[in-house]
Amino acid sequence: MSELVGAAIFGQSGGPTSVINASAAGVIQEALKQSCITKVYGAAHGIKGILDEMFYDMSQEDPKELDLLKTTPSSALGSVRYKLKSAEEDETDYKRLVEVFKKYNIKYFFYNGGNDSMDTCNKVSKYMQKVGYECRVMGVPKTIDNDLYGTDHCPGFASAAKYIATSTMEVYHDARVYDTGMITVLEVMGRNAGWLTASAALAAYKGNGPDLIYLPEIPFSMEQFLEDTNKVYKETGKVIIAVSEGCRDAKGTYVAEMGANLAKDSFGHAQLGGTASILANIVKEKIAKKVRGIEFSLLQRAAAHVASLTDVNEAYLAGQMAVKYAIEGKTDYMVAFEREAGPVYKCNIKLLNLTDVANTEKKIPREWINKEGNGLNKEFIDYALPLIQGESCPPLEDGLPRFAKLKKVLATK
Amino acid sequence: MSELVGAAIFGQSGGPTSVINASAAGVIQEALKQSCITKVYGAAHGIKGILDEMFYDMSQEDPKELDLLKTTPSSALGSVRYKLKSAEEDETDYKRLVEVFKKYNIKYFFYNGGNDSMDTCNKVSKYMQKVGYECRVMGVPKTIDNDLYGTDHCPGFASAAKYIATSTMEVYHDARVYDTGMITVLEVMGRNAGWLTASAALAAYKGNGPDLIYLPEIPFSMEQFLEDTNKVYKETGKVIIAVSEGCRDAKGTYVAEMGANLAKDSFGHAQLGGTASILANIVKEKIAKKVRGIEFSLLQRAAAHVASLTDVNEAYLAGQMAVKYAIEGKTDYMVAFEREAGPVYKCNIKLLNLTDVANTEKKIPREWINKEGNGLNKEFIDYALPLIQGESCPPLEDGLPRFAKLKKVLATK
Repeated sequence: MSELVGAAIFGQSGGPTSVINASAAGVIQEALKQSCITKVYGAAHGIKGILDEMFYDMSQEDPKELDLLKTTPSSALGSVRYKLKSAEEDETDYKRLVEVFKKYNIKYFFYNGGNDSMDTCNKVSKYMQKVGYECRVMGVPKTIDNDLYGTDHCPGFASAAKYIATSTMEVYHDARVYDTGMITVLEVMGRNAGWLTASAALAAYKGNGPDLIYLPEIPFSMEQFLEDTNKVYKETGKVIIAVSEGCRDAKGTYVAEMGANLAKDSFGHAQLGGTASILANIVKEKIAKKVRGIEFSLLQRAAAHVASLTDVNEAYLAGQMAVKYAIEGKTDYMVAFEREAGPVYKCNIKLLNLTDVANTEKKIPREWINKEGNGLNKEFIDYALPLIQGESCPPLEDGLPRFAKLKKVLATK
Repeated sequence: MSELVGAAIFGQSGGPTSVINASAAGVIQEALKQSCITKVYGAAHGIKGILDEMFYDMSQEDPKELDLLKTTPSSALGSVRYKLKSAEEDETDYKRLVEVFKKYNIKYFFYNGGNDSMDTCNKVSKYMQKVGYECRVMGVPKTIDNDLYGTDHCPGFASAAKYIATSTMEVYHDARVYDTGMITVLEVMGRNAGWLTASAALAAYKGNGPDLIYLPEIPFSMEQFLEDTNKVYKETGKVIIAVSEGCRDAKGTYVAEMGANLAKDSFGHAQLGGTASILANIVKEKIAKKVRGIEFSLLQRAAAHVASLTDVNEAYLAGQMAVKYAIEGKTDYMVAFEREAGPVYKCNIKLLNLTDVANTEKKIPREWINKEGNGLNKEFIDYALPLIQGESCPPLEDGLPRFAKLKKVLATK
C-alpha cells in the first residue's frame, strides 16, 4: 500500500464517557507523530463541525494538556447526535463533506462513538469510496452501554461499571445503619442493553451489593418485582435493587411510563420522574415505609476520578491503533477488542468491517442472567471484573482533578 | 486526677458519613491500648444499643479490620436517631443507663455524632453527675452538615465536600458537550446550613463549577432564581446550579413543598420529588428545553473512595484524643478543632463544654456569601479548600474498595 499524504480529522460523537478523551489523546498524539499526516484537526461537535467547517488545529495545543485528555471526562471537542440521512435519500451532507475534505486535503477520518456514530462513519466511508475520493476511514468504539457488536467490550463501559460497583458498595453500607427496614432503588443507564446495570453485580460479588437486578433484556413484570422485593424485605429488612432505566414490560412499556398509570390508580394524579423514583414510590405504598430512589445520572458516565486504568489504557490504544492501521493502508474498519482465552486477562486489537458493526446491538446473553431474571451468574462476573482493574487517578491540583484545558484554535479557512 | 479503672463504651449516632468509622477506629484502637480501660464495647445503634444491652466486645475484632474502619464509610456499629427525653420529664432511660453502666462497670462513655447526639451526650453526662455515678463522658463531633457550634469544622464535612466538588467538576464537563442550551440543577444535602452546597463553589474556583449557588441561609425567591438562571442562560447557553435541599422562602416553605402548588398551576396536578427535580421542571417550563436535575443523595455522605485524607486523619484524631483526654480526667466535653492563623493550614484540638455545643447550629456567615445571595466569596474558598486536601484511597481488592468486616461479637451479659 502506497503512502497516503494529507490531513487527518477526528470527531467525537454520541453520549460522553469518562474515557472518550483518552481515545482522542490516542488518535491526536499518534497522528501528530506521523510524517504523512500533514495536519491534525479536531472537529467541534463531531460530524457537524466538519459540515460547518468548525475544527481545531490540534498542533496548537500544549502537549501537556493533550496528555491530560487521558484523564479528562466527557467530550473535550464537543459531541453531537446528528444522524446522516442515507446518501440515496439526500446527498447534500455527503457532497458538503467531500467539498470540505478536498478543501483541507483531508485523507484520514477518525470517528469515535457508539452504534449511531459507527453508522455515520460507515456511510461516510461508503460515499467516499463511491465518488472515488481517497480517504481512509476508521471508527473508534466508545459507549458506556457496551452494546457494540463484534468487540469483547467497548471503551467507556468499564469505568462506568467501576463507578457503579464502587458507589453501590458505599450505598450498601449507608443503607443498613439503622435498625429499621429500608429499601433502596438504584437507577442505572442503558436503554436497551443491561451491561451497566449488571455491573452492580460486581458489588454483590464483593458482598456489598444489590439483592435484585433488573435488566432491559428481561421483560419487566411489576407483580414479579413486588413479589421479589417483598420476599427479600421479609427475610432481611434491607433491600437494595439495581434497575435499568430501560426496563420495560413485555408490551414495551417502560417502567418510567408505567408510573403515570399506576400512580393514578392510587393517588388520582400522574407521577413524573425516572424509573427509580417510580419504583420507590410504588414500593413505599405497597411494602415499606423507608424507601429511597437514587439515580446515578450523569455521574456514572463522567466519573473520571474513579475510572478503570484498564479502560483508560485500552481507550487510548484504540485511538492510537486506528491511526496506525490507517497509515498502514486499512480503511472502512472499526477498531475492536478480542479477549484471549485463559485465566489471565489479555485483549488484542482486531478490526471489524464498519458495515457489520453499524446498527447491530449486543445484549447480555440469557445464560449469564439467573433463571429468575433478577440477578447475574458467575459468567458475567468473570467477564466484567478484569475490565475494572487498575486506577487511573487523574492528576490533582488543590485536592481536585486537574482536567485538560484546550486552547481550541480554529483551523484557518 | 486519680486513675479511673473500668470499661469504655462507644456509640455512633445520627446520619452516617464517609469518616465516622475513622473516629470509631480512633476511639477503639486508643481505648484498647489503655491499661485502665478493662473492656471496650461498641454499642449497636448508639444509645439504643446501650439501653437494650446490645453491644459488641471490640477486643474480639481482627486488628486489621479495625484498621480498615479508617476507610470504610457509614456507621459500622449501626446508628440511631433516638432522642432522649429530659430527665425532668422522664427518668426511665437514664435509670436504665445507670443500671447498664453499673452492670458492666462502664466508666468511659464516648459518643460520636452531630447536634442531637451531643445533646444526648450532654444529658447522659449531666445525669451521671447528678446521681453521683463516676463516668467520664466525651463527645466526638461528626456531621457532613458542618453545623456544630464552636469547632472550626466537623469531621465528615470535608470528604462530602471533596466528593461534591469533584462530581460537580465532572458534571460540568458532561453538561457542555452539545452545542445546544442546557441547564443542570444539582441538589445537595443540608437542611439548615449550606456548608455542603457551598462546597460546589470549590469546583467553580477551579473553573469547572456552578454559575449559581442557593443556600438555606438566604431566603429563596423563585422569581429571583428564574431571573438569575435566565440571565446566565441567555449569556452562555449553559447553566449549572447548585441548590440545597434546605432552600426555603422567607415564610419557611421549602422548595420541595412549593413544587406541588407551582405545578398545579400549570399542569393541574401535584408534583412529587426533591428540590432539584422541582426546580428542573419549573426551569424546563419557563426557560430551556434541555434540563437535568441531579441529586447527590446518599452518595455524597458515603463516597469513601474520594474522601479527604485531612478529614480521615482528623476524624481518627478526634476519636483518639477523646480517649486520651478522658484518661487524663477530662469529662463533659466535646473534642473540637481550632485553626491556627496563617497561610499554612494547621488545626489543633480543643475541648468544648457539651452544654455549649448541644443544640446550637453554626451557619455560613453572611459576609462569606456574595451580595446577590447566589454564590460564595473568597472567604469560603480559603476556609474549605485546605480541608479537602489529600486522598484517603481505601485499600482495594479486585479493583473495588475493601471495606472493614467486623465480627460483632456480642458482649456476654
